[in-house]
Amino acid sequence: MPGRCSVRPFVLPVEILTEEQLDAIEGQALRLLEEVGTRVAHARARDVLAAHGQSGPGELVHWDRGFVLEQIGKAPARIALRGRNPERALELGGGSLVCAPTGGAPFCSDLERGRREGTLGAHAELVRLAHAAGLPCLQSGTVEASDRPVAIRHLEMDYSVLRFSDRPYVSYGTSERRARDGIELAAVACGGRAAIERTPALMGVVNPNSPLVWDEAMAGALLAWAEAGQPVIVTPFLLAGLTAPVSLAAALSLQVAEALSGIALAQTIRAGTPCLFGSFFTGVDMRSGGPAPGSPEAVLATLAGGQLARRYGLPYRGGGGLCSANVLDARAAAETTMMLWAAALSGSDFVLHAAGWLENGLTASFEKLVLDAELVRMLERVREGIGVGAEELAWETLRAVGPGATFLASEHTLAHHREWLFRSPLFPAEAYEPWLARGGETADRAATARWRELLERYEDPGIDPALDGELKATIARLARAAPG
Amino acid sequence: MPGRCSVRPFVLPVEILTEEQLDAIEGQALRLLEEVGTRVAHARARDVLAAHGQSGPGELVHWDRGFVLEQIGKAPARIALRGRNPERALELGGGSLVCAPTGGAPFCSDLERGRREGTLGAHAELVRLAHAAGLPCLQSGTVEASDRPVAIRHLEMDYSVLRFSDRPYVSYGTSERRARDGIELAAVACGGRAAIERTPALMGVVNPNSPLVWDEAMAGALLAWAEAGQPVIVTPFLLAGLTAPVSLAAALSLQVAEALSGIALAQTIRAGTPCLFGSFFTGVDMRSGGPAPGSPEAVLATLAGGQLARRYGLPYRGGGGLCSANVLDARAAAETTMMLWAAALSGSDFVLHAAGWLENGLTASFEKLVLDAELVRMLERVREGIGVGAEELAWETLRAVGPGATFLASEHTLAHHREWLFRSPLFPAEAYEPWLARGGETADRAATARWRELLERYEDPGIDPALDGELKATIARLARAAPG
Repeated sequence: MPGRCSVRPFVLPVEILTEEQLDAIEGQALRLLEEVGTRVAHARARDVLAAHGQSGPGELVHWDRGFVLEQIGKAPARIALRGRNPERALELGGGSLVCAPTGGAPFCSDLERGRREGTLGAHAELVRLAHAAGLPCLQSGTVEASDRPVAIRHLEMDYSVLRFSDRPYVSYGTSERRARDGIELAAVACGGRAAIERTPALMGVVNPNSPLVWDEAMAGALLAWAEAGQPVIVTPFLLAGLTAPVSLAAALSLQVAEALSGIALAQTIRAGTPCLFGSFFTGVDMRSGGPAPGSPEAVLATLAGGQLARRYGLPYRGGGGLCSANVLDARAAAETTMMLWAAALSGSDFVLHAAGWLENGLTASFEKLVLDAELVRMLERVREGIGVGAEELAWETLRAVGPGATFLASEHTLAHHREWLFRSPLFPAEAYEPWLARGGETADRAATARWRELLERYEDPGIDPALDGELKATIARLARAAPG
Repeated sequence: MPGRCSVRPFVLPVEILTEEQLDAIEGQALRLLEEVGTRVAHARARDVLAAHGQSGPGELVHWDRGFVLEQIGKAPARIALRGRNPERALELGGGSLVCAPTGGAPFCSDLERGRREGTLGAHAELVRLAHAAGLPCLQSGTVEASDRPVAIRHLEMDYSVLRFSDRPYVSYGTSERRARDGIELAAVACGGRAAIERTPALMGVVNPNSPLVWDEAMAGALLAWAEAGQPVIVTPFLLAGLTAPVSLAAALSLQVAEALSGIALAQTIRAGTPCLFGSFFTGVDMRSGGPAPGSPEAVLATLAGGQLARRYGLPYRGGGGLCSANVLDARAAAETTMMLWAAALSGSDFVLHAAGWLENGLTASFEKLVLDAELVRMLERVREGIGVGAEELAWETLRAVGPGATFLASEHTLAHHREWLFRSPLFPAEAYEPWLARGGETADRAATARWRELLERYEDPGIDPALDGELKATIARLARAAPG
């Protein structure tokens, strides 16, 4: 861009822990792995680890710190992803802040149709909406397709993402079988198994059962993705006072122990498997037992998590548009903005649940999805930094206008205001009286108009009928093979 | 605090401009002062500057860069303030993030009584509310006392702050006479003129009439405060495309030129006068001409302003709980949270309008005041950082709980959850169904209950009857002397 020279990208990331503190947290994490160990409730995972000298009585595995750190060193620092459309390729790493919509919600809601159980139809709408809102990565299971049989809905949700978007995505994969099914579909859609092993098309999320348990479903999914070379996002799910202690330092040591053990297991399966160091820690409101993911503890844990990920040279998944508010009110936006800032400042490479998360993740909100996408766009503009070239300095304009005049009609203003001043369809600057005369619309209502507009403007990426037929045949075959 | 060792304070501040960019901005600012100059529409100010060799034709003053930088060097890097109660002393500097409520609003609003013109009664309520909410610094004129005669309302609003709080404050002082009246009242309340000259009791805000004009009212107020040694907050009021160009680099050079000229003038009046380098830049929505102070441009300008203030060794006033939303909805909270993060990250020492600002500052909102105060409290907790001592690491607890159990009943949780998990009266974590059964209260409604509770719990700091009488007699004397 002419004149747009010497822009400094807003690459912080914030360093909130000292080296001494990082050492203390890591030291305790490795001691946990060695002395307490993790339970690994998956026979083949235990066998593989035992073959590498990592074992313990029964389902316990005691992990040698040297082994863990050696395995971690095999995971790449950057991850390339390609979508069904190769032009939708992404690279995670270096604070890439790639955002994906919320996922795992049993409910969805919008102000026109209310709060309701998720359906496959709602899932497809949310996929189209996230695609139209410009989110570069999608998520299967943005809302649960509760109207479909459990045995096949993971296939139908992954298909919904593959059909209505052409971007990389997070597969539903909440068990070994579902993960393998998702990989098969992706291979069909993206040029075959060998192609997606070269450049992954999807990512998978595994949450250890904190504290310190790898259950059969999660360990199995991890194995499936690692074998196929698809990136694994290893995210301990830490709730202060429930699955983790109430102190950040202890929770962080648990996070490191769990995340490193999962990533080490993935490397043992296939060295070089792309893995993300994931962070999810929230305070809990002890009055209700409810999580409080917009709390200061969650912000601090997100910042610290980024530093830990960098210590291990791993891409980082942290933060999100998280809140515990039940509606899209001032609280929802405050908590969400806190957490999106935390994501940006922590140097997050991938932000899951960046848009649409409401009610502690139990509801995928159409309105919140578009509002959050706008907040992400604002942070992206902030991350671009400030250009200080001749055109931006505008010496001649300043000199010509001089003391006491206005820049309203100056050529510099006319030439640049559209490009250089952020305009939001959701946040028009409007004085009180005209705003009231127009109906006194609140932001949640404005967001209703916005998601309707985005769905109307949604451009179907299309799909080759032969490929579509092959995907549907694969789904039918996998459905027949499903247990029950 | 035992075990709370090795906490790292969250002192970033973010550096968003390179040295080369800072040089370019400063270079243009000094060139503006030299070649274009400022208009100074105050005869005595021009005389003082002329005596120091700074003059130009008519009301213009061309400023020598060496003179400006020499004067700036006389301003202190830290500012001590004392309230009516010496225990309420504050120090500004080093990223102190001292927050004050909104000010200058013609309207006030709450959900019980609606939006209405300000009155002296509403002003006193807002003072009590800001005091009860724990804001360490008050502001006279939080809402305009429109029911009182213009000639004396500044006295009554300053009295309202002095009577219902005992903390340092920003005086109303929108002209030379009003500034002098405010100083007289503060001297009566805080031990006499000599005492407040030693340790200031109030601060004053001056906004040059951008671009590049020091009008009579503002230059006069600046002179009055400087003569009395009271801190002057010099804040160019920059609206992109109106009072400033639409590019950040040009606006920043204008900000530096205006702020440095005002601070140099204050030092010329009285060397060592405490001055704050102030920042206020917002994008403008060219569709309506309305300012957009929660925009990415405003965030970037706030961050850059902090870096510039540090370059000159000056305490920084930046950011605020700013928004252009007309009601306390998701948009208001998103914009506000963006700007409060900007304030914290920029290393702001003083944050004006941190709480209660609605509708581009035209309305002081009771609900928003208490909600914003809660956001400030959250950021303060984030700034405390993470403690990594033995008690926080909780080795024995982690070891004892082991894989698969819960921390709910562990002693460590019971001992620390109240202290270590942030609890907000406004943001309880409550599941959807009980929340709905309780009435489905949105955050703005919860804030209504909160401000009512805070006003009920407000503890009157009291005032010695003799002092109160003296203040009232001073007001009567100054009122009689008022023109008209």
